[in-house]
Amino acid sequence: MSFSSIAILSPGLLGGSLALAIRKRLPATKIRIWARRKDSVEKTLEMGIADVASTDAAEVARGADLIIFCMPVGAMKAVAEKIAGVVEPSALITDVGSVKLVVRELLTPVFKGKAEFIGSHPMAGSEQAGLDAARADLFEGAVTILTPGAANRKESVAALADFWETMGCRVVTSSAAAHDEAVALISHLPHLAAAVLVQTVTRENPAALDWHGNGFLDTTRVASGPPAMWAEILTENREALKKGIHAMIENLAEVTKLLESKETGALEEYLAEAMNTRKRLAHPKTKTIS
Amino acid sequence: MSFSSIAILSPGLLGGSLALAIRKRLPATKIRIWARRKDSVEKTLEMGIADVASTDAAEVARGADLIIFCMPVGAMKAVAEKIAGVVEPSALITDVGSVKLVVRELLTPVFKGKAEFIGSHPMAGSEQAGLDAARADLFEGAVTILTPGAANRKESVAALADFWETMGCRVVTSSAAAHDEAVALISHLPHLAAAVLVQTVTRENPAALDWHGNGFLDTTRVASGPPAMWAEILTENREALKKGIHAMIENLAEVTKLLESKETGALEEYLAEAMNTRKRLAHPKTKTIS
Repeated sequence: MSFSSIAILSPGLLGGSLALAIRKRLPATKIRIWARRKDSVEKTLEMGIADVASTDAAEVARGADLIIFCMPVGAMKAVAEKIAGVVEPSALITDVGSVKLVVRELLTPVFKGKAEFIGSHPMAGSEQAGLDAARADLFEGAVTILTPGAANRKESVAALADFWETMGCRVVTSSAAAHDEAVALISHLPHLAAAVLVQTVTRENPAALDWHGNGFLDTTRVASGPPAMWAEILTENREALKKGIHAMIENLAEVTKLLESKETGALEEYLAEAMNTRKRLAHPKTKTIS
Repeated sequence: MSFSSIAILSPGLLGGSLALAIRKRLPATKIRIWARRKDSVEKTLEMGIADVASTDAAEVARGADLIIFCMPVGAMKAVAEKIAGVVEPSALITDVGSVKLVVRELLTPVFKGKAEFIGSHPMAGSEQAGLDAARADLFEGAVTILTPGAANRKESVAALADFWETMGCRVVTSSAAAHDEAVALISHLPHLAAAVLVQTVTRENPAALDWHGNGFLDTTRVASGPPAMWAEILTENREALKKGIHAMIENLAEVTKLLESKETGALEEYLAEAMNTRKRLAHPKTKTIS
């Protein structure tokens, strides 16, 4: 099973990059794009990344065998309700949202008995947003987490995994709950920590910002991400994220104690553990300069 | 007043990069390098970055008109005592340490009545360490903070500022105490936060590390820095750093409260303030990929 016609609902950074990647890696596949705004529809046509583009979601979804929700999670349900009546029963529905429990709760009832839904989360993005920031290589080397449920067919999961692998991703599967717990730590907490770091310096001593080096720029890069989108994501995953914040506060309290010591050995050990872990992580394939 | 013979004491990442930058930007200047180990001495000669190199600090310091301590702060005093008897009275002594109160307390008494000392702190570096990581462009675009005291002569401060500007830096002056407070926030706290973030994920859910994206890599890049060096720096600046950690914990508690709200408006505002501040910061001139 492979897809001959893919609908991308909302061509932002992720949707636009996905269209570019499909053009490059699956040149025979038709791309259908829905955008809320007419100028975005026109832009996707000008860029040559859509065979069909429209502000009418039903028109775009009709006949597609893979439909990918790429808008913020809070906007998904309204669009899902517009297309539920026209999707092919054989169509596979997925999304690229950063939280998976909430998306499943929103979309599963809408598509029940109409088409199969499986959540996807490609761990790709940048602090930039919108179609102008889209890149064909955004997904290369990224992990994509699929969160199938008991109702999903094996063949559908395999087909979706194959699609993301073709986009250059390493695919893993997880329960939606385990996904949300892990992503709270590896993605949402770092985002919040970057914003908190910027705000801490700003509130304590704004003049210190003038003295930043590359270290501060790297550590806080993700804080440049779109606030409305991130406020929504962080709030949707609040329970898992609160546990992560609590654990981070405990770690900060622990290093404060280590700093009290005359000997630097215990602090050095803490930093060495972090260094060893960090060095084991893969190098990024691509790099955004900001 | 400009310098015709510069002694670099310890050719690590900063000392080695400084030698490369002097070769490039002040080709007529003689470079004298002290290294603790014989193989480092030989390497600087092979690389062509030293006109004279030796494991004998007094031999290297003799006749130099600018002497730059580039070793970890804890190692400075012993070397200072070895050269205090031979430095030219007209020589200017500086260092590149990340804390300035401690360095001043260590070096001022040793050079009292023998030569003038002014602290420097170039906000440059990377998570790498050692001569192999040295780069001629490490200081380009970096802020360098000078921390002169009441005893320093205007001409000396001007000459030192001129030197760092020639290396490509933007030079500012500050009291040593104000320096340490500001750098605790803009450099030491981000370093600690990066290590704490790695440790928090590792301790809560090590499997989540497998799902990291570029955001996590950027946010934690500095955690790959040498632990012994950083444990020393963080401990030397512990009082200011503890205030910074405390402020960060307060900010984390504040966003936890914002997450409780059904409305995302207040959290969005917090993130938007961070985004606006972060976007105003200059782009890095150079970028280390890790």
